[in-house]
Amino acid sequence: MRNLVIVGGGEAGFISAITAKKTNPRVNITLINDSKEFYSPCALPFVISNEVGIEDIVDDLEEMCRESGINCVIDTVVLIDTKNRVVKTKNGHEFRYDSLIIATGGTPFIPKIPGIELDGVHTLKTIEDARRIMEVIKGVKNAVVIGGGAIGVEISAALRKRNLNVTLVEICEHLLPKALDPEFSAIVERKLSENGINLLLNSKVDEIIGENRVDSVIVNGDEIKAEIVVIGTGVIPRVELVRDCGIEIFGRGIKTDGFMRTNIENVYAAGDCVDSRSLLTGKLMLSQLATTALRHAMTAGTNAVGGYATFEGVLNSMLLKVFDIEIGRTGLTENDARENEIETITGVARGTTRSHYFPGSKEILVKLIFNELNRSIIGAQIIGGEGVAGKIDLIAFAIVNNARIEDLIKLKYCYTPSSAPPRNVIVLAAENARRKLQRREEERKRKFERI
Amino acid sequence: MRNLVIVGGGEAGFISAITAKKTNPRVNITLINDSKEFYSPCALPFVISNEVGIEDIVDDLEEMCRESGINCVIDTVVLIDTKNRVVKTKNGHEFRYDSLIIATGGTPFIPKIPGIELDGVHTLKTIEDARRIMEVIKGVKNAVVIGGGAIGVEISAALRKRNLNVTLVEICEHLLPKALDPEFSAIVERKLSENGINLLLNSKVDEIIGENRVDSVIVNGDEIKAEIVVIGTGVIPRVELVRDCGIEIFGRGIKTDGFMRTNIENVYAAGDCVDSRSLLTGKLMLSQLATTALRHAMTAGTNAVGGYATFEGVLNSMLLKVFDIEIGRTGLTENDARENEIETITGVARGTTRSHYFPGSKEILVKLIFNELNRSIIGAQIIGGEGVAGKIDLIAFAIVNNARIEDLIKLKYCYTPSSAPPRNVIVLAAENARRKLQRREEERKRKFERI
Repeated sequence: MRNLVIVGGGEAGFISAITAKKTNPRVNITLINDSKEFYSPCALPFVISNEVGIEDIVDDLEEMCRESGINCVIDTVVLIDTKNRVVKTKNGHEFRYDSLIIATGGTPFIPKIPGIELDGVHTLKTIEDARRIMEVIKGVKNAVVIGGGAIGVEISAALRKRNLNVTLVEICEHLLPKALDPEFSAIVERKLSENGINLLLNSKVDEIIGENRVDSVIVNGDEIKAEIVVIGTGVIPRVELVRDCGIEIFGRGIKTDGFMRTNIENVYAAGDCVDSRSLLTGKLMLSQLATTALRHAMTAGTNAVGGYATFEGVLNSMLLKVFDIEIGRTGLTENDARENEIETITGVARGTTRSHYFPGSKEILVKLIFNELNRSIIGAQIIGGEGVAGKIDLIAFAIVNNARIEDLIKLKYCYTPSSAPPRNVIVLAAENARRKLQRREEERKRKFERI
Repeated sequence: MRNLVIVGGGEAGFISAITAKKTNPRVNITLINDSKEFYSPCALPFVISNEVGIEDIVDDLEEMCRESGINCVIDTVVLIDTKNRVVKTKNGHEFRYDSLIIATGGTPFIPKIPGIELDGVHTLKTIEDARRIMEVIKGVKNAVVIGGGAIGVEISAALRKRNLNVTLVEICEHLLPKALDPEFSAIVERKLSENGINLLLNSKVDEIIGENRVDSVIVNGDEIKAEIVVIGTGVIPRVELVRDCGIEIFGRGIKTDGFMRTNIENVYAAGDCVDSRSLLTGKLMLSQLATTALRHAMTAGTNAVGGYATFEGVLNSMLLKVFDIEIGRTGLTENDARENEIETITGVARGTTRSHYFPGSKEILVKLIFNELNRSIIGAQIIGGEGVAGKIDLIAFAIVNNARIEDLIKLKYCYTPSSAPPRNVIVLAAENARRKLQRREEERKRKFERI
């Protein structure tokens, strides 16, 4: 019998395991993880905000494995020996493999700030982190969140919902600087401010102050009271295990090809520990999303046991809920396009999520980004009160399938007053882009005539 | 100056007018309509249910036209003279045209049932109909709705929300027989029954009984008390004006080509009075949806004043809200495919609209229909608690763009627990179809080996 060993039992590891089992039921699959608690890290901010309970989101990894015919070992891998095809654990066990999948995930990036080691400074990556934060915030009033990416924004909103005074510190000019263009970031910033979050953009935490426990934070020379500090400065691939065993690291994560193979034969990798390739630019990038991990895992799990599957790259389709708005994005931002020297034309439209007169109708704003040269859609950003996911998914599908402005204008959408308005906001945004393109053409004509 | 005359000022007529104005601002545009009240007929059931007020949905057509530089004439057209290019009205006015758009809409189909002329028997197509029904239901308890298509189902739900005892009578075996396959119709039937609507399928109204006013209805020989009867047996194109002026009617509506041209030069038609062509089968069909009227109108309005636009056909993407579920469909049903001799493979999946543990998460059921020969998507039916519109729109886009099972499996969807689940239900349904296809292949292999 052939052995597949999987290092890591988060989403990437577990999905790899069940995919492998379905692909080739005769393979002996062993999954090694240091905890038997299985959960979606994306749910943790909603635990902090008390919208869901910890018991709602945690499953028993051992039980899940048992049900699927997978051996589950709760232990910590300390060595991967790719020469002898053996994995060694802290408890002294050895597992021989024919095929290996590395799914070690990511670990929070900790910025070098004086005082960062103090009690009361937290990250939010694991359920243990969430438990600790839940315990601490019971008795405190003031929080500082460091980092205005997706995690930082979600944590800030969650703490604010728990009635803490929240200050969010972001080093860039805008929140979500990688995900959104500035004018969309500005909407999120307004939403956070309206809800009482103190936003400090263009700002750096100089020091965290306290004796043993955090007491305050120095930002731009000002002292801000804080009994809790949460670090949301991103996640870095956990690759310390593979550093010495010949597995190549490129960029920040493990280098894989479109089959999720590493440079070592029969060793695959999946999830947050891996660098992904952008479907649009071909460049390596981090795409630490559950949906990306799932795709990695289904590909690695299939290929590791003799099946055939490919992973063609990422668009980073992303969704955030912040207070009462949904924020979605996919593909390239205008900023990304500029960096990649792609000429763009954008289309923007504001609409409603239902007929404007219907109770519960909410605003929605769509920005589509097209490659001007071939008029194909390469990105979108959407902020609205509901129904953002379906629209982002549609645009992501359109990007993969090389759709043009005209294809989106001709979208055969549905309508009923209670649930979708008569004019589709994606169509309106695409029409806006077409009009802009026409104006550009006319302008060039006029310019030429003035030569 | 060239003259464009538009007969009819509903959605098709008005959108034709403003499209023409934008396309060619130098054309003199006259829109003739018998009422100055402009509204979406799709909103009328929600008026009946008291979810929206009449004042919310009615706009002033004269004002709307004035703002857009369109001449609005409130009058009734009695004659179209295509030889002399003149339109004559009831009030004795004549309008000469260079270009004409016919947008006369539809009129409810009235079945031949004894007693159908009694007071208390209503249709729901115009805002006047809605006013009359609103007046009548104030004092009554029992309603019978004839016809279980979209209109009949919506009216039944609306009357039930007003606490009437409602009996819905449908001649076919299932509700929504053209829009959905039987197993999806059955879900709608269950929802109506759960909400206290008395459903009579496979049933015919034999007679409506009463002296002057309706008193009861005979169905299958049984007498059902009813102080109000609403007819929801569909809408037929209003074509009486064109019958004698040489404009060709094909099927039930005015025959048009892909430019919305009738057989008479410079005469166009748009909206419910027109037969549309199915994008998938090429056959003529009625597609009396606001979204179809809009596409017709944008095409006719552009072409009638010297622009260039085409209309490539319909998928009948449709959305209904019935109590707390949204019902969406697009493209062909399995029934449609069978009638058109298309071999199909379906994929079905049940999911949730958010992460299953998240408050407010609702069930959603997706059925995808593929052409087995080339694995391309040709239809979908979706019933769920929220977010159905976005998914139907995505599938409609996939149909138009010839997507295959594999393309949907690779959908780069977004996820966050509060708004979209980690496993996309469209992907799950496509995976289900692929598994079925693999089983079919294996079965054929086994069968062959037994020969």
